[in-house]
Amino acid sequence: MTNMIRAEIITIGDEILFGQITDTNTQWIGTELTNIGIRPVRKSSVGDQADAILQILNEAHQRADVIIITGGLGPTKDDITKKTLCTYFGVGMVRNETALALVTSFFEKRGRAMTDLNRAQADLPANAVYIQNDWGTAPGMWFEHEGRVYISLPGVPFEMKHLMSNRFLPKLTEHFQTPIIKHKMIRTVGIGESFLAERIEAWEDALPDHIKLAYLPSFGGVKLRLTATGDDNDLLDWELAEQVQKVMPLIEKSVFGFDNDELEDVVGTLLKERNLTLGVAESCTGGYVSAQITKVPGASAYFWGSIVSYSNAVKVTQLGVQPETLDQYGAVSEETIRQMAEGARKALGTNVGIATSGIAGPDGGTPDKPVGTIWIACATDQRTVTRLLKLGQYRDQNIQLTTTYLLNMLREELLNI
Amino acid sequence: MTNMIRAEIITIGDEILFGQITDTNTQWIGTELTNIGIRPVRKSSVGDQADAILQILNEAHQRADVIIITGGLGPTKDDITKKTLCTYFGVGMVRNETALALVTSFFEKRGRAMTDLNRAQADLPANAVYIQNDWGTAPGMWFEHEGRVYISLPGVPFEMKHLMSNRFLPKLTEHFQTPIIKHKMIRTVGIGESFLAERIEAWEDALPDHIKLAYLPSFGGVKLRLTATGDDNDLLDWELAEQVQKVMPLIEKSVFGFDNDELEDVVGTLLKERNLTLGVAESCTGGYVSAQITKVPGASAYFWGSIVSYSNAVKVTQLGVQPETLDQYGAVSEETIRQMAEGARKALGTNVGIATSGIAGPDGGTPDKPVGTIWIACATDQRTVTRLLKLGQYRDQNIQLTTTYLLNMLREELLNI
Repeated sequence: MTNMIRAEIITIGDEILFGQITDTNTQWIGTELTNIGIRPVRKSSVGDQADAILQILNEAHQRADVIIITGGLGPTKDDITKKTLCTYFGVGMVRNETALALVTSFFEKRGRAMTDLNRAQADLPANAVYIQNDWGTAPGMWFEHEGRVYISLPGVPFEMKHLMSNRFLPKLTEHFQTPIIKHKMIRTVGIGESFLAERIEAWEDALPDHIKLAYLPSFGGVKLRLTATGDDNDLLDWELAEQVQKVMPLIEKSVFGFDNDELEDVVGTLLKERNLTLGVAESCTGGYVSAQITKVPGASAYFWGSIVSYSNAVKVTQLGVQPETLDQYGAVSEETIRQMAEGARKALGTNVGIATSGIAGPDGGTPDKPVGTIWIACATDQRTVTRLLKLGQYRDQNIQLTTTYLLNMLREELLNI
Repeated sequence: MTNMIRAEIITIGDEILFGQITDTNTQWIGTELTNIGIRPVRKSSVGDQADAILQILNEAHQRADVIIITGGLGPTKDDITKKTLCTYFGVGMVRNETALALVTSFFEKRGRAMTDLNRAQADLPANAVYIQNDWGTAPGMWFEHEGRVYISLPGVPFEMKHLMSNRFLPKLTEHFQTPIIKHKMIRTVGIGESFLAERIEAWEDALPDHIKLAYLPSFGGVKLRLTATGDDNDLLDWELAEQVQKVMPLIEKSVFGFDNDELEDVVGTLLKERNLTLGVAESCTGGYVSAQITKVPGASAYFWGSIVSYSNAVKVTQLGVQPETLDQYGAVSEETIRQMAEGARKALGTNVGIATSGIAGPDGGTPDKPVGTIWIACATDQRTVTRLLKLGQYRDQNIQLTTTYLLNMLREELLNI
C-alpha cells in the first residue's frame, strides 16, 4: 500500500496524559479517516508544553501526509496550540475578522458578555485557512506546509465532530487521491476469542493477502473485522460479502449483527418487525439496561418503560413480586427473577418483559451467593426463560455483562416468535 | 524537573488506530503513574505491524525511562507484540513453565479444553521477567534494557488494571527514585470555562511556579486541576490546600466536590447524611439517571428505585400523572414534570423524587418544543422545584447534560434541607 495516504492524529493536553479526561476524539477520527481511505498510522498524545508539541509535529511530518491536531484551542492560559503552530510554521498571529464576527455573534445570541479571552479566540496563525466552527468559539484551521496537510480542531467532541464531518473530511477527500479501504465487521456474542479463532482457522488461513482479519474482544462478545484494500469499490464489497458468506455457517449462532449493529439496535428492529412492546424490570443493573435500549433513536416505538426495583418494597408494590417468594428464596433467585420479568409485562402492559436481579458488588456477597451471582429472565406470552450468570467481582463489568447477556437472551427469544 | 522519571505509554492494535475499540487503558495508566510521581510524557498508539512497533519502541527509548506497552498479547494470529519484542531485544522465544502451568489450570478450573493457541501464550521473550496475570491467560512481562524499564501488559482492561495495581506499580515505585507530584481537583458545575477563568484570573496569575492550573471542561461542568511538584509531600499537600482555600470564596456556589467526586457520589452522601430516600421518574433520559446513581456501590442505602415512563400510559398508571394534564399541556411541560417528580415520591414511597421529561432527539421536535427542550424537577416534602433546559440537537449529549443538571438540582435542594 505504497500510495496509501497516511494520517497521524495528535491530541494535545496534560489532562489526557495525566488521565484526567477520556479521549474519545481519536477513536472517532480514526474511524472517519479509515472510511474515506486514509490510513491512521499513529496516534499520539502530548502535554501542553511547546517543546513536546514541536517534537511530535516534526516526527509526524516524517511519517504522515495529513496531521490532525485536536485540543489546546480553549480561551484559557494553558491552551498553547495556536502559539506553538506559529513557531512551527514560522509565522505570526493575526486576528481574523470573520472569526471575530462569529465569536461576537455567538455571545450576542446567548446574551452573554464577551471577554478579552474570548476575543483572542479569533487570533490565528498567519498561514491558517480559517474553517468556521458553528458550535463554539474555537476555530477550525487548515494548513498546507512542505507537502503536508495540517488540521487543527477544538478538543470539545461535538465541535470537533461537526467540523470534521461537514468541513474537513470533504476537504480531505477532495485534496487527496486515495486507494479504497473497506471494512466489514461481524459482531458475535457469547463465544470466547480463542474458541472463535479455532472454529474459523481454516477460513482465516485461506483469506487473500489484501483482506485482513482482526479479533476485537469487547464485553461479552468478539468483533471480527475484515479489512480489504484495493482500487475497485464494487469488487472489494463483493469480495468481503463472499468471505462473510463463507464464514457465517461456522459461527451463525453467535452472530447478532454486522458493522455498527449493537444488540440494542438488533432487538429494537426485531421488536418492531414483530410489532411487540417491551417492558423492563431492573434490580442489580439499576437502569443501565433501559439506558442502553433508549440509546436508540425512536425506541419509544417499542420500549414502554422500566421499573428499577432496587429495594424489595418496590419489587412488591410495582412489580407484584410475592413477599413470600422474597422471604423464602431471596431477591437473587430464579423464583424472584421469574416474577420480576412477568411482573414487568403486567405492570407496564407490554408483550415482552425482561429482568435482572443479582449481586453486582463489591459488597453484598454471601458464601452461597458470591458477588457476580446474577439472574436474568425474559417473559413472553408463550413462556418465561431464566438464566443464572456467574460473573466476576467488578461492579461496572457485572452491570455491562449482565446487560449484554440479557439483550442477547431477548434477541434469541424474539427469533423464536 | 530534570530528575523526573518519564513514562511513555504505547497501545498496540489496528483496532485502536482504526477507531474500532475505545482505549480506556492509557487514561487509567496515566492516572496511576502520575499518582506515584512518574510523569507520562507521551502516549502513542500503533498498528499490528512489526515495523511500526519497532519504530515507536526506538523513539520511546530516547524519550522515556519506563515504557509501558499494552495489547497484542492475545492468542490469535494478529497479536504480534511478543514476537516483535524478541526482535527489539534481540532474544529468542522461550516457553515459560510457570506461565504454562497457570494457563493449564486456568482452563482446567473452567472445565474448558485448551488449544495450542492457548499454550503458546506461555511462550515469552528470553529476557522477560514473567509476572503472573491472575485474571487471564496473557502474561505480564517486565524487561530491563539499556537503562530503561519495559512493561508489557494484556489489553483487556480488567486484566491490565489488576496486573498494574498489584504487580507493576509497586515494582516501579521500588525501582525508581521519584520526585513527588500532587494533584488537587476542584469540580465545578453549571459555569462556563471562560467565565470561570475570568473570575479566578488574579488568583491564577499569583500561583507559584511549581503549582500549575489546568481547566478540564466536561459535560455541564469544568474541572480545575492543580498540579504541584516538589520533594516534600506534606508541604505540597499544605500548599495545595492553601490555594484551594484562597480560590473557593470566588467559586463556592459552582463547586460540588473535589478530586474524584462525581455528582452521583455527592448526592448519595447528602442523602445518607440526611437519612433520606430517593425515587426517580425518567422519560427522555430513559434510565440513564438511575444508572448513574447506581454506579455508586451501596446506593441501595438511599436509592429505592426508578420508573422509566417512556410511554404516556406508564406515566399515568405507574406515576399517577393526570391524563388531562398530558392532553392539555403534553408530556414535555412544567405541569407534567411536577406530577412526575411528586408521583415518583408517592409511587416509590421515598422522601425525595426527581424527574426528567423532554425531547432528546433527533426526532420528535416541534416549532414550539424543538429537540433539546427538556424539563427537570425535584420534589421533597417541603416543595417541588422545576426547571426548563434548552439543550442542543445531539441525543447522547442531551441525555448526559440533563442528568448532570438534574443531579445538581437535587444536590442544591438537599443542601437546603
